[in-house]
Amino acid sequence: MQESNVDLLIIGAGPSGLMCANALAGRGFNIRVVDKRAVGVQAGQADGIQPRTHEILQSYGLMERLLREGVEIHRNAFYNPGPSGGIQRVERTAAISQPTARYPFTMCRHQGGTENFFIDAMRPKGLEVERSTVPTVLELSTSTDSPELLDPQANSVKVVLQHLDRTENDREVVHAKFVLGTDGAHSWVRKAMGIRMEGGHTDFVWGVVDFFPDTNFPDIRARTVIHSTHGSILVVPREGDLVRLYVQLSDMDVVDKQTNRVDKAQASPEKLIETAARILQPYYLRAIGDVQWWTVYIIGQRVAEKFTVQDRILIAGDACHTHSPKAGQGMNASMGDTHNLAWKLAYVLRGWADMSLLRTYEAERRKFAQDLIEFDKEWSTLFSGKPRTDQHQDGVTHEATLGVFKRFGGFSSGIGIRYAPSIIVDSKHQACASKLIVGERMIPHVFIHAADAKPANIHDLLPSDLRFKILVFVADVTTDTGAVPLRKLSERMGVESSFLRRFGHGNHLETFDILCITSAERDKVDYTDVPELFRSHWSKVLVDDVDYSGRCGGGGFAAYGIDPKEGAIVVVRPDGYVGTVAPLDRVEDIDAYFAGFML
Amino acid sequence: MQESNVDLLIIGAGPSGLMCANALAGRGFNIRVVDKRAVGVQAGQADGIQPRTHEILQSYGLMERLLREGVEIHRNAFYNPGPSGGIQRVERTAAISQPTARYPFTMCRHQGGTENFFIDAMRPKGLEVERSTVPTVLELSTSTDSPELLDPQANSVKVVLQHLDRTENDREVVHAKFVLGTDGAHSWVRKAMGIRMEGGHTDFVWGVVDFFPDTNFPDIRARTVIHSTHGSILVVPREGDLVRLYVQLSDMDVVDKQTNRVDKAQASPEKLIETAARILQPYYLRAIGDVQWWTVYIIGQRVAEKFTVQDRILIAGDACHTHSPKAGQGMNASMGDTHNLAWKLAYVLRGWADMSLLRTYEAERRKFAQDLIEFDKEWSTLFSGKPRTDQHQDGVTHEATLGVFKRFGGFSSGIGIRYAPSIIVDSKHQACASKLIVGERMIPHVFIHAADAKPANIHDLLPSDLRFKILVFVADVTTDTGAVPLRKLSERMGVESSFLRRFGHGNHLETFDILCITSAERDKVDYTDVPELFRSHWSKVLVDDVDYSGRCGGGGFAAYGIDPKEGAIVVVRPDGYVGTVAPLDRVEDIDAYFAGFML
Repeated sequence: MQESNVDLLIIGAGPSGLMCANALAGRGFNIRVVDKRAVGVQAGQADGIQPRTHEILQSYGLMERLLREGVEIHRNAFYNPGPSGGIQRVERTAAISQPTARYPFTMCRHQGGTENFFIDAMRPKGLEVERSTVPTVLELSTSTDSPELLDPQANSVKVVLQHLDRTENDREVVHAKFVLGTDGAHSWVRKAMGIRMEGGHTDFVWGVVDFFPDTNFPDIRARTVIHSTHGSILVVPREGDLVRLYVQLSDMDVVDKQTNRVDKAQASPEKLIETAARILQPYYLRAIGDVQWWTVYIIGQRVAEKFTVQDRILIAGDACHTHSPKAGQGMNASMGDTHNLAWKLAYVLRGWADMSLLRTYEAERRKFAQDLIEFDKEWSTLFSGKPRTDQHQDGVTHEATLGVFKRFGGFSSGIGIRYAPSIIVDSKHQACASKLIVGERMIPHVFIHAADAKPANIHDLLPSDLRFKILVFVADVTTDTGAVPLRKLSERMGVESSFLRRFGHGNHLETFDILCITSAERDKVDYTDVPELFRSHWSKVLVDDVDYSGRCGGGGFAAYGIDPKEGAIVVVRPDGYVGTVAPLDRVEDIDAYFAGFML
Repeated sequence: MQESNVDLLIIGAGPSGLMCANALAGRGFNIRVVDKRAVGVQAGQADGIQPRTHEILQSYGLMERLLREGVEIHRNAFYNPGPSGGIQRVERTAAISQPTARYPFTMCRHQGGTENFFIDAMRPKGLEVERSTVPTVLELSTSTDSPELLDPQANSVKVVLQHLDRTENDREVVHAKFVLGTDGAHSWVRKAMGIRMEGGHTDFVWGVVDFFPDTNFPDIRARTVIHSTHGSILVVPREGDLVRLYVQLSDMDVVDKQTNRVDKAQASPEKLIETAARILQPYYLRAIGDVQWWTVYIIGQRVAEKFTVQDRILIAGDACHTHSPKAGQGMNASMGDTHNLAWKLAYVLRGWADMSLLRTYEAERRKFAQDLIEFDKEWSTLFSGKPRTDQHQDGVTHEATLGVFKRFGGFSSGIGIRYAPSIIVDSKHQACASKLIVGERMIPHVFIHAADAKPANIHDLLPSDLRFKILVFVADVTTDTGAVPLRKLSERMGVESSFLRRFGHGNHLETFDILCITSAERDKVDYTDVPELFRSHWSKVLVDDVDYSGRCGGGGFAAYGIDPKEGAIVVVRPDGYVGTVAPLDRVEDIDAYFAGFML
């Protein structure tokens, strides 16, 4: 049998696996991605993409395409039973209410379309998905207490792959340093490793159907929650004029009593649309042409007991967590997992960080998955419950519905996700940038380039390029208030014991990008006014001022809770989360932060 | 010899010819584009792209790519001689000061890159440039007083083409309904038709050089005007870190005394950079690596005496006007010419409009070209003059420079271009939309979609798709103030004598798109609240309100000078210029407008 070595073998080319593959492609790693499917997803499946995911996609240069191909959802609408029997609108609200969201809306793009973002981005970087390929054997090639497992360069995982599209030489052995299982809810990798799912499933049965509607319902282009006396629907606008309906199935006819599994044969898209039309009265609803995709499901809510085996075999995405699809979280959680993991794998593979860095993947993402299940429990109950009416005094009120939307807005948008303190999350000096919460994602804000006065969202200067970003916020550098501490900082960062020298591996720009943001006036400061360390390129010096059109910029220090007279150093992790902050004269604490996990 | 017929033969695949080709590609016309060059422009040449051109490119879906590939210039900087001999900065200002510009900056993208926007957009529409092809014969195939010339379907122009890349069958005869000559400043088409250029040339000699600079000059990324005692430079930032310098040549050594033409052999890029470095003192300037492109020129300022022969052979772009390149107008004027012409050719070819519509091309664009030359005369003199110093009391002051920048800002940005009254520009009812100047381009503004609350710039709803856009601005349609006049308008537009019926050719949506903008509240109005005529799709109904994020929208009626209680009908031409406006109860004047040129 053919044998080969790889740094990383990714099993499963869904959004989770592809996020990781694209993040690491073209950066000198030996990576392979295999998938059992002969072709990608053609329709249906996951579709919701949330604001934090937009920001993550933007950090990989993929948001422009999502904006072009996906649909933006700006509005929620809520309907309850009206006095004359049919439904009536109770309220319309913003779909997203997080004020710092760079893209203040949710989006839909079907899973296959989203997968193509990554596939097309990877190709010019020399990485393609190997399809019709399944693993048949997966094992650590050493004992679990072997010191070899502490050496990231050891090819400690053995995988046998079978190529379904070959008639001979259809099996090969791959010796991988790391294996990532992103093979979905029924993950073969998870099962092969004997990792249990914790949790259970609800009794709520729902149908989903994607189709082109003919209707006079005025909120067909909003994310609309409808509670009627005939059951509930969630309307989700899709690309073009397509619409997805989640339809509550009031009876359990579609569930096989023996297996407690849904029997799809007992349902049909026509029945789903018929049920929806009944719920939607007095509005009419018909399908135009063929239904695009449909399914029926019972809501299961589970989290894997662990996300890794010895930090050599890792699982991510649906392989780790399953929940209701209606909150549009699935793809986001899956891509979020591997966005979190990719840079950590890179640092370990490059020998820049200790293996212990990988421990933070499970710590950060399993906690998130558990929170997701808690959120989903409230969310599902709310949707599946009967509306409050005179007959059902214990039903769900509109206020309760709205309350859950608001309470979980930060979580469901992804904007409010906060990673707990760890070796890579140090909030010791939180006070010096009081609104840039350590462990949360960097807050987007527009600053002005000193050299050319072009406004730029700071997020666009923090691409997911595997580098830590060192942001130096400083007072007006045309005066001593800014110039003196900046010169001292430059000197301090240049000494032997500085993190730049210790962990910069000869050329610190490979590991660290440095930006300088000053509170000076746009037209009075030159980019040449800061020490060379802070201007590796003219685009690295920014001003906290409005742009010439007066349409953007200014107020950045205030938005971040940084005193313009004091300044601050902000360390942004390669995944865009604030790792730590410190006063300008406390570089030793930044040194200590990096010494905590870097080699 | 092979013979064939075409609707339109475009000679010259520069920005002007390609703008026209792309505008008409894929719309059922038989078009050919030929160019004598074997390959497109590789470097240098024209590069400046102005705010109105951004808007035009956006109307063809090409702005996203320009933003990605080009460089934005937000700032002007001005330097004059300082007290110690070298230059010193006098002022920094906005590069663009037109408050309504959708993209408030100027851009650079080299001519070949810009040409590729069109070439790549045309290809999927089935149109490719035929290269290495030159015309050798061009003539009307009938007498100039023949009635055939009034029939747009007659193939009245005979062209012989020679294919330089063929060894046999290298000549063919093309019988064209229309021929467009966009073959540059030395236009063969213009000469073949005996069209004279009017005007002359200046004595100002300039060099241009594109290179990567090594410098400590802080305004190397601004559009910087430098007047020094050693001469003048204009700095124009280019893509990436590239920079273009226009360098004044103080002596006439590079001019051949006999021909009065520039002799490029007597100049060199090294000399240009050397001269620039002397002017730039006390800052240093060196080139990194090889110079990318360079040339030397004398400023000529000429306009063709006429732009058409019998409206069957038309010229556009540099074939019609030449001027100084320093104002970055060339490509803009060229693309503006054919953006103006394309829809007129389409309407005549389709038999929808009378041949007389083509007369407005020369009327609108020759007037523009003359204004351009007037502007260029002041602009060139300003740049080429000596700075005012103690020794030169009659030199150019900074105030004079700034004054010209400001006075011509509307013109040079393209935003302020206003076409004079004609059969397609009728300002009779200007007062009902007092700020939407008839003859100027539609003012961009963000409105909110009634159906899904998504904000949209009105410009994105006015694509260059050859249709006239009928914009109905109306009071709150959830009250009688809006609902009653809108219902009456719907009825009135449906009668036999209405322009929609008379000129709609059975399906008015092929010729007219209709949008409805109401002053109703975002959360109270449904898109289903307007009569069906005004909602051919759910996306056609808009609200003048802020979006959910509070970041955009609102104030549109005020920005357009439309009384929300009265409303107005705004007719936007296919090229985005306001054709006419009228009160809601004066549809007969809209009827008359279209009757003036449509069949």
